Amino acid sequence: MAGSTFGTSFRISTAGESHGPGNVVIIDGVPPGLELCADDLQGDLDRRRPGQSSLVTQRNEGDRPEILSGVFEGQTTGTSIAILIRSEDQRSRDYSEIKDKYRPGHADHTFDAKYGRRDYRGGGRSSARETNVRVAAGAVAKKLLRERCGVEVLGWVCQVGNLLFDPPELEARSAVTLEQVEATPVRCPDPATARDMITLIEQVRSERDSIGGACRLFAKGVPAGWGEPVFDKLKADLAKALFSLPAVLGVEYGSGFAAASLRGSENNDALSFENGKVVTTTNRHGGMLGGISSGMPIDLRCVIKPTSSIPQDQDTVTTAGEPTTIATKGRHDPCLLPRFVPMGEAMVALVLADHYLRQQAVKPS
Amino acid sequence: MAGSTFGTSFRISTAGESHGPGNVVIIDGVPPGLELCADDLQGDLDRRRPGQSSLVTQRNEGDRPEILSGVFEGQTTGTSIAILIRSEDQRSRDYSEIKDKYRPGHADHTFDAKYGRRDYRGGGRSSARETNVRVAAGAVAKKLLRERCGVEVLGWVCQVGNLLFDPPELEARSAVTLEQVEATPVRCPDPATARDMITLIEQVRSERDSIGGACRLFAKGVPAGWGEPVFDKLKADLAKALFSLPAVLGVEYGSGFAAASLRGSENNDALSFENGKVVTTTNRHGGMLGGISSGMPIDLRCVIKPTSSIPQDQDTVTTAGEPTTIATKGRHDPCLLPRFVPMGEAMVALVLADHYLRQQAVKPS
Amino acid sequence: MAGSTFGTSFRISTAGESHGPGNVVIIDGVPPGLELCADDLQGDLDRRRPGQSSLVTQRNEGDRPEILSGVFEGQTTGTSIAILIRSEDQRSRDYSEIKDKYRPGHADHTFDAKYGRRDYRGGGRSSARETNVRVAAGAVAKKLLRERCGVEVLGWVCQVGNLLFDPPELEARSAVTLEQVEATPVRCPDPATARDMITLIEQVRSERDSIGGACRLFAKGVPAGWGEPVFDKLKADLAKALFSLPAVLGVEYGSGFAAASLRGSENNDALSFENGKVVTTTNRHGGMLGGISSGMPIDLRCVIKPTSSIPQDQDTVTTAGEPTTIATKGRHDPCLLPRFVPMGEAMVALVLADHYLRQQAVKPS
Amino acid sequence: MAGSTFGTSFRISTAGESHGPGNVVIIDGVPPGLELCADDLQGDLDRRRPGQSSLVTQRNEGDRPEILSGVFEGQTTGTSIAILIRSEDQRSRDYSEIKDKYRPGHADHTFDAKYGRRDYRGGGRSSARETNVRVAAGAVAKKLLRERCGVEVLGWVCQVGNLLFDPPELEARSAVTLEQVEATPVRCPDPATARDMITLIEQVRSERDSIGGACRLFAKGVPAGWGEPVFDKLKADLAKALFSLPAVLGVEYGSGFAAASLRGSENNDALSFENGKVVTTTNRHGGMLGGISSGMPIDLRCVIKPTSSIPQDQDTVTTAGEPTTIATKGRHDPCLLPRFVPMGEAMVALVLADHYLRQQAVKPS
Repeated sequence: MAGSTFGTSFRISTAGESHGPGNVVIIDGVPPGLELCADDLQGDLDRRRPGQSSLVTQRNEGDRPEILSGVFEGQTTGTSIAILIRSEDQRSRDYSEIKDKYRPGHADHTFDAKYGRRDYRGGGRSSARETNVRVAAGAVAKKLLRERCGVEVLGWVCQVGNLLFDPPELEARSAVTLEQVEATPVRCPDPATARDMITLIEQVRSERDSIGGACRLFAKGVPAGWGEPVFDKLKADLAKALFSLPAVLGVEYGSGFAAASLRGSENNDALSFENGKVVTTTNRHGGMLGGISSGMPIDLRCVIKPTSSIPQDQDTVTTAGEPTTIATKGRHDPCLLPRFVPMGEAMVALVLADHYLRQQAVKPS
Repeated sequence: MAGSTFGTSFRISTAGESHGPGNVVIIDGVPPGLELCADDLQGDLDRRRPGQSSLVTQRNEGDRPEILSGVFEGQTTGTSIAILIRSEDQRSRDYSEIKDKYRPGHADHTFDAKYGRRDYRGGGRSSARETNVRVAAGAVAKKLLRERCGVEVLGWVCQVGNLLFDPPELEARSAVTLEQVEATPVRCPDPATARDMITLIEQVRSERDSIGGACRLFAKGVPAGWGEPVFDKLKADLAKALFSLPAVLGVEYGSGFAAASLRGSENNDALSFENGKVVTTTNRHGGMLGGISSGMPIDLRCVIKPTSSIPQDQDTVTTAGEPTTIATKGRHDPCLLPRFVPMGEAMVALVLADHYLRQQAVKPS
Repeated sequence: MAGSTFGTSFRISTAGESHGPGNVVIIDGVPPGLELCADDLQGDLDRRRPGQSSLVTQRNEGDRPEILSGVFEGQTTGTSIAILIRSEDQRSRDYSEIKDKYRPGHADHTFDAKYGRRDYRGGGRSSARETNVRVAAGAVAKKLLRERCGVEVLGWVCQVGNLLFDPPELEARSAVTLEQVEATPVRCPDPATARDMITLIEQVRSERDSIGGACRLFAKGVPAGWGEPVFDKLKADLAKALFSLPAVLGVEYGSGFAAASLRGSENNDALSFENGKVVTTTNRHGGMLGGISSGMPIDLRCVIKPTSSIPQDQDTVTTAGEPTTIATKGRHDPCLLPRFVPMGEAMVALVLADHYLRQQAVKPS
Repeated sequence: MAGSTFGTSFRISTAGESHGPGNVVIIDGVPPGLELCADDLQGDLDRRRPGQSSLVTQRNEGDRPEILSGVFEGQTTGTSIAILIRSEDQRSRDYSEIKDKYRPGHADHTFDAKYGRRDYRGGGRSSARETNVRVAAGAVAKKLLRERCGVEVLGWVCQVGNLLFDPPELEARSAVTLEQVEATPVRCPDPATARDMITLIEQVRSERDSIGGACRLFAKGVPAGWGEPVFDKLKADLAKALFSLPAVLGVEYGSGFAAASLRGSENNDALSFENGKVVTTTNRHGGMLGGISSGMPIDLRCVIKPTSSIPQDQDTVTTAGEPTTIATKGRHDPCLLPRFVPMGEAMVALVLADHYLRQQAVKPS
């Protein structure tokens, strides 16, 4: 029932499937006067699109956005913005196999159970294709946050398999730049780890397999006071946003799962005062207290499962319930992490933009 | 802006603070004809309430619910149900210290930043006291799920500090019973681990400190097909629900963070067919695929930070920005886990009840 | 499904029936720092309550509100405010007649059709009793609007039967004061018309009948720019608010139904400029253009049907479908208009407060 | 703030302006298995489109819808449906006059007040152009209602100026057919009145003026039980829907404004029992009691103001506040009623489809 809308004050609604004519997002609530054109969206779309490097799926999608409304004379009008991305690389294929078999790790039998039918061409609505318009909307949110609030959202790959780059010091995380992230196709800002990750991903692909990983998401400049007490805590809305992306199995803030074995005296961040603001040196609280931003960076990690589609035989059943095997034939990412980074950033930016606007009504001008 | 409402078809709105006259929840969307009385709520409220054992805070709250509406002749009418829980143990105290100092790990300075003021008596709206009415509402959701769908939601403490009881086999988790959970005040179903956990918590308290932990939440009987594609994925709504509880720093489903180092061939659950349903032997997918329930148990873990309030000096600042120290004087839980279990169950039940009702509109009768 | 919540940024949720222990409202989104106490609510509650004059039902309800949350040290905290009004005058009665017969003009058989049951004691959830908490919430909205924006909302009875006081000149309507409205129990500001209305209502009552009427609602001081284009037009949200009240059969703005026979050259209000603002001399547009407030007064009329409960025999059916007659035995208003005025004002104020706060996010500070 | 979404279970979000590249609607919540193609939408779009007859504006828009998602193998999938209608007839014009002057009766100065800017080309977002995608979405709702519930929604012009066709008998209104409505371009089902209306509209146009009117909207086959008590009453949601359309100044149900001068004994509809259902012979209640459908036809009237744009000089001001005059030069409808009919039907159908789906969650299967 009507689950394709996200956000309250900065709200997006989406539509589109993997093999339909295109995907659409309507963004409602963007304040007037923001300069906006299609080029503002292309950068992040290019970071998400298939075919961008040898590490990802070789489908070739340009992901060219068309802004259909809400912009006049180069600026947002304050009314709803529609963005359309036409699909391009739709090879005619034989779908008979995935029509009649359920792919492990996919939403095939769950869609059948839910709707009594499914669009079996490449995942339909459950395909990651629908994230392209989220990334476009996220680019609008990022621009708003940057220009109106000085907030920057940045993500990077902090883990692929057992390879980790995740410095425990807040300062080291704060120092990561977009340039470092984009320096390699794997989007790990540490060159040595990035090299190893690339090697691992290529090896995994050559073994007809896939590999999981984790993404760090980091937002600088968020002032204290965003987020609502109780249900719409900032950490709650961010988690919903991230878990709404395909393949996310876990989200943790600050000290995260490690906090299970910590004592209060170890986990509490001591408060001090700097430049007129309450600050902490450490960031075990992840930038939110009581669900409200503390003024420290939003600092979280999410885990992405290995791609479910792998080109080797896996045990499954037919739609009629007979045992069988299936091996993926399409073009898939051996590791979802490099393309996940802009998706994660987009979802974080959408939530922050929403709570930025929501906070306006708490303390009216 | 208006963040005290949760859910769509099964919707709750709450109000109340730690030191006000009481807490209220309005539950909207409960179908007609469910037998309901205050006693149905008391069981879970007793599992949540302070003073229930020597392991938790010794404040003494009866948490007696009064049903104000929505029930007639012992059955729900289909209209909104209001439940009031009056506060009882409100010692008059001297709040001057926490009025003028920010407690580390608490929402003190974030509320000040957000609202320009705060109710400094024990946390105000950010206090865990507000969860009592969530637990009451969750008891209604549980009853609906049990009687209409055969769904059971159960949680238990799977970690305190470095002490773990978290069997990797789905069968072992499926076999845990409410009786086992309630057999000890720590709510770990394994007697030996429970004993160790109790010892650890008592030791931590004697050391004027606190300790973190993790909670397993498990729902059996959820049919395939609940949850929406894209934003209102079941995993997204469950995560929002759990992160809306105080002190939660992480949530993971199925293989969770371990999936970062797994290959697709290791992480995919093979599908088979049993009693007319698609099933999996393992549950690394956590009971949801594409955000829609798969028919396997919902299976997740969340991490709770150590209690921020500890009776030892911690560095902080005054509201005026001067460095100072603070030591908690009130009565606090040395470990939040035992009382977290019914809160976590309640939030899971609220989300499941919501998606059960939402699914009615997808395939109308 | 979950229809007991109203508003977006200034949001209320309600619960309660005619013959339950009490009614509750949770108000979410009230900005911090508004001075508020129960006395602020009592004035409008007294204007709505039964037993206030000889013209209305003689049930005797004090309608004493208790503020349960959201106010600290005399000011709103910014978090949700719960208000409880306990029921007082609940005579034990014999409900067997209305249990087994459907009252014409009431929601008896529609509730049965919807829920398969109904609380037959005096209307249950469909009773006008539930409006007491709306009036309490409306008093909070009025206070916010008055103190933060200089907006005043005022209603009056402009028609009872064929008796009319509804001056066509904007100036005459603008000049009406609360004192004039409250000078007589019928709430018509024109003394002569009021006297006639009172006589008519008493006559109708003596004839065991009831009479309809109309209410003018007027809001001064609303700045240009409130309301959203397309669906959440101010006129759309106001209409929803008013039609959500019992017994309302029509709403019209500005020239209203008379516009059907006007020409554009007659109906358009010419624009001029005064004190830095665009103004109109006439107000045929009713204070909104394109669904957005124009800076002129919000100016509308709504029609209230004659009370359905009348103490004379009416043809109806039993719940089993047998023809029968029913005559109301309880204490009912012979004319709903006098008590409708504060209800209508409350709903207008709730919508205006909501759009005031919503506009903050359109042009962030 | 985010006002371009409408509905709960059957939800639409729209975007687009009068002079942009196109308008888009995303429909979320359409149940799976409904046969749907672009042709299903074209019929109502043709009834709404400009240029359809000599009575309406002579702009020429084909209003060809493209379904971008949510339909697979000719049937709805249950996921969100996007429909795009490209704009066609966009003459390049000189907008300098309306750029610098505020048009009386339009949303020009209210948009400027709200957003600090406006798209001055033909009304931008406030243009009636945005209703084309509402009509497309309404066609989907109508099809769902017809095929799943046997509900038919029909509207007709019941008044233009002082010319009326509005039979007081329920039977006469029930007997009106789509064929009768579509028999003349004015959409009044009575041939004689239609002829007079056409003559009047042509005369008004020749006098460089416009004329108002009223539309009857009627829905047959709605079962008892749709609509929610309190805020989401069916009459409240219908009113919001209708007032969200441009130029609507009033809505009334059943006896409507006439009820102000009726007595209860005159206005109550006696209940009787027929074919297992509670029915009334008269329909002064308009098909809803307590906000819930009664099983009788939904029966309402709404008034549409005369077109504000008229080709004669009207007094107004420049954006700088100087007095001036303005005469509309574009192509406008001399009377909005003929094209309003499908818009009104669409909004009624959207609300009914929403409440049909909402009711599924009240009495789960």
